[in-house]
Amino acid sequence: MNLQQQLEHVINNKTKPIGSLGLLEDIALQMGIIQQTITPKIVKPTIVVFAADHGIATTGLVNPYPQAVTAQMVLNFVNGGAAINVFTKQHTIGLVVVDAGVNFDFTNTKQVVDLKVGYGTKNYLTEPAMSDTEALQAIENGKIIINQLAAEGCNTIGFGEMGISNTSSASLIMSAITGSKIEDCIGRGTGVNDAQLQTKIDTLTKVFALHNLGDFSNLPVQLLTKIGGFEIATMVGAYLQAAQQKMVIVVDGFIATAALLIAQQTNTAVINNCIFAHTSGEQGHEKMLAYLQAKPLLQLGLRLGEGTGAALAIPIIQSAVLFLNEMASFESAGVSNK
Amino acid sequence: MNLQQQLEHVINNKTKPIGSLGLLEDIALQMGIIQQTITPKIVKPTIVVFAADHGIATTGLVNPYPQAVTAQMVLNFVNGGAAINVFTKQHTIGLVVVDAGVNFDFTNTKQVVDLKVGYGTKNYLTEPAMSDTEALQAIENGKIIINQLAAEGCNTIGFGEMGISNTSSASLIMSAITGSKIEDCIGRGTGVNDAQLQTKIDTLTKVFALHNLGDFSNLPVQLLTKIGGFEIATMVGAYLQAAQQKMVIVVDGFIATAALLIAQQTNTAVINNCIFAHTSGEQGHEKMLAYLQAKPLLQLGLRLGEGTGAALAIPIIQSAVLFLNEMASFESAGVSNK
Repeated sequence: MNLQQQLEHVINNKTKPIGSLGLLEDIALQMGIIQQTITPKIVKPTIVVFAADHGIATTGLVNPYPQAVTAQMVLNFVNGGAAINVFTKQHTIGLVVVDAGVNFDFTNTKQVVDLKVGYGTKNYLTEPAMSDTEALQAIENGKIIINQLAAEGCNTIGFGEMGISNTSSASLIMSAITGSKIEDCIGRGTGVNDAQLQTKIDTLTKVFALHNLGDFSNLPVQLLTKIGGFEIATMVGAYLQAAQQKMVIVVDGFIATAALLIAQQTNTAVINNCIFAHTSGEQGHEKMLAYLQAKPLLQLGLRLGEGTGAALAIPIIQSAVLFLNEMASFESAGVSNK
Repeated sequence: MNLQQQLEHVINNKTKPIGSLGLLEDIALQMGIIQQTITPKIVKPTIVVFAADHGIATTGLVNPYPQAVTAQMVLNFVNGGAAINVFTKQHTIGLVVVDAGVNFDFTNTKQVVDLKVGYGTKNYLTEPAMSDTEALQAIENGKIIINQLAAEGCNTIGFGEMGISNTSSASLIMSAITGSKIEDCIGRGTGVNDAQLQTKIDTLTKVFALHNLGDFSNLPVQLLTKIGGFEIATMVGAYLQAAQQKMVIVVDGFIATAALLIAQQTNTAVINNCIFAHTSGEQGHEKMLAYLQAKPLLQLGLRLGEGTGAALAIPIIQSAVLFLNEMASFESAGVSNK
C-alpha cells in the first residue's frame, strides 16, 4: 500500500461508519500526505498577521475607516485586545505580527516583526502601487519569516492580515486572475454601505482599466506592483516558502486567498499544503474558493481578517489529526463491522 | 437599556467592524440572554451520550449493523476509543454515558449511568415501541440526569446519542411533526447503500401508516410510545429540564434534533436555550433545522452522532463568549471608529 492507501485504511477502520466524520476525514488524509506519515501532528501552530497600508485608503473612495486604523490595530494586536488575540490565546496558538509596510514607525514596539518595505503603497488609482524592487523585497521577506518559524519548529501556519483597504487589492487580484467581472469580486469589506459600495465599484473599475488588468499575460510580480499591497506580496513569498518547507498552511479569508491566487501562479503545488479555514462573509470569497476547488471548513459569516477564521479552524484540523492518531479500530475495540 | 441592548452595545463596540464576527456575534448575544448577563460563561461543559436499542434493528430492514453494536460502542465510550472520547478530551469537555435502554447488562460497568428503561424497544413494525409508562419513565430519567449535572455546576450540555437504527425513529418523528413526506425524512443513517435505502424507505412507510403518524393530533408521549426510542424519550425529558435549569443546550445531529422536535411540542421555549452544533450529512437534517429556523454553527458533513458535532462546536461557542468578555473596545484600545 502507498501512503494514501495506508491512511485510508487507518481512517476506514476506526470505530465509525466509513465517511461519517465528513470533512475531518479529508483533512486527516491531507495532513498525512503533507507530512508524509500516518501519524501527522500539529506542532507550534502559529498565526502570522501580515499588516500593511494602502495608498488608495487615503482617497476615502473604497473604505470608511481612516488609514490610521491599520497601525492602531497592530498596536491592539500587540496589547492583546483584538479578536485574533482572544482566539489564539483560547487555543494556545502562537501569534506573530509582521509589519510588512504599515504607515507608522514601530521601531519602539519590539513585538512587531520588522519586515517593512515602505510606509504604505502608492495610490494605484493614479500610479503603480509599488516598484518591482519593492515587490521582490516583500516576497523575499515572506520567505524570511517562514524560515524563521520553521527553524523554531512550527509546522502549521495560519495566514492572516490587516490593512485598511486591502479588500480592494484582493478584488482586483481576483478579477485579474480568475476572469470574474470586477463588480462580482467587490464586497463591502469591513463596514461599507450601499452608496460607498457603488463608489468602491466605480473606483476599482477605473483602476482595472488603468492597469490593463484584463490582460492575462500579467505576471505575478506585475500584478503586485500594479495593484498589490506590501502585506499581500509578503504573503505570496510566505506561501511559496511554507510549501517548500512542507508546512501545513491554513488560509484565512478573502485577502489571504487572493494572495494565494498569486502564489499559485508561480507554483501550482502550493495549494496541496493549504487547508481553507472558512468561507468569509465577503462577497467574492465563495467564488474565489470555488475557482480553487477548495472545501473550506467553516461557514460562520466572518469578515474580519486578522487570521480569525484560521484560528477558529485550527482546533478542527487538530480534531482530524487526533481522531486519526487516537481513535480505536473496530478490531482493537471489539466492535462488529458490518 | 435592556439586557439585549446592553449586549448589542458591548458587541458593537469591540475593535472590529459591526457584524464582522458573523454567527459568533449571534451566539454571544444568545449566551448572554440565556444566562441573563453581559458576561456569560461556559462552566463544566458536558456531552451526555444517551444510548438505547431499537427493536426494529433486529429485523435487518433499516440498518446494516447488528444491534449488538450499540452495547459495543457504549463500552468503546467507556474505554476511551470512540470519536467522542477524542474530541471531549481535546477540549476538556466532560463526557457522561447514559444507558437509557440498551440491550445489554452494564451492571458491572460503573462508568455507565444506569437509567435503563428496558432492554431495547419493541419492533414498531408490528407493535408500539414502548408503553406509556416506559415513555414517561424515560422522560423522568432525562430530568434526573440533568438535575444531577446542574447540581455539579455544569451549565452547558451537549446532547449526543448512540443507538443502532435510531435514525429510523428520528425520520418517523420528523415526518409526523413537520409534515414532510416520509421519504424526504429518511437518509442513509450510518452506512446504508442504495438498495438498503429503498428497503428502509419501504419499511418506514409501512410503519408510518400502521401507527397513523400522519394524524397531527398525536401527542408527544404518543409519538414516543409508537415509534420512539428510550434514548430519544430520555433526551426529551433532558431538553425540558435543561431549559428549566437555564442551561445552554448544544444540539448535535439528526436524532438529537428529532428529540428536540418532540420536546418543543411540550414547551416551545426550549429552543431559546438551544445552540445548533452542525448540519449533519444525514439527509433530512437540513430540512429539520430549517423547520426550527435554526442557524447551525458547523457544516462538516458529519453523520456519526455520539455528540461529536456538539463537541466540535463547543470551542466555537467558547470563542463567542471569550470575544464578548475579553476583546478591547474602540475606546479602550484607542482605535478610530468610523
